[in-house]
Amino acid sequence: MPYDTAGLEILGTEECLSLLAQAPIGRIVFTDRALPAIQLVNFVLDDGEVIIRTGEGSKLAAAARNAIVAFEADDYDPVTRTGWSVVLVGASRVVTNAAELARLRTLPLEPWAPGPRDDFIRIRAGLLSGRRIRRGDPAS
Amino acid sequence: MPYDTAGLEILGTEECLSLLAQAPIGRIVFTDRALPAIQLVNFVLDDGEVIIRTGEGSKLAAAARNAIVAFEADDYDPVTRTGWSVVLVGASRVVTNAAELARLRTLPLEPWAPGPRDDFIRIRAGLLSGRRIRRGDPAS
Repeated sequence: MPYDTAGLEILGTEECLSLLAQAPIGRIVFTDRALPAIQLVNFVLDDGEVIIRTGEGSKLAAAARNAIVAFEADDYDPVTRTGWSVVLVGASRVVTNAAELARLRTLPLEPWAPGPRDDFIRIRAGLLSGRRIRRGDPAS
Repeated sequence: MPYDTAGLEILGTEECLSLLAQAPIGRIVFTDRALPAIQLVNFVLDDGEVIIRTGEGSKLAAAARNAIVAFEADDYDPVTRTGWSVVLVGASRVVTNAAELARLRTLPLEPWAPGPRDDFIRIRAGLLSGRRIRRGDPAS
């Protein structure tokens, strides 16, 4: 297994995508009025890109209009102190093409929050990286 | 309960701090070479500020030197589709005062990752906000 300088196992692209595909929830990182912002969202992967639903006119929809954002998903066990985290950094856009919107509406992506969520945001995986801490990693 | 325009319950400052105090893991959001970055970290609260340990000379230690960062912790249940998220935005700094360092080393903050983690980062809670989705929230 390859490790980074911090002693964490480096995950390959396929494993990153496989972990993302199983995660129900992630966090989108964007800029809001020049300040760092982060929002918990449910999502699906579509052709290796992250798809999020949000309310039309929401802060998130405005921020994700042709921006560079990060997206993170993780899972961890505080008892064994093990876990993984996958981060994707890439260009986000609000989907406006009618045919693409119709297809995205058929994806298994039901908003958790109440109220309409009719805007779809796509995040392209420009950079994809993942790390894991296992029990008994090298320097531990 | 107060709700935001997205239909999520707005958490008060005391509840945000109480949830943060119970969370074993959070995510620090910073800027790395002009790109948004996010890193999973364990942490403790000290006097309402977030304390993180990191390796001396790490990317995180460099990024957190007098920057404005965000910090997020959350918990959710994918079955009931309920959860909460607390976000703190504020100034971060690497602690250099010897007396403060000595005190921080006594906090219950053991690194999960292997290897030395001797730099302490403090994040002041300039802005603190939290949201919760419960079963049966108003518009659902």
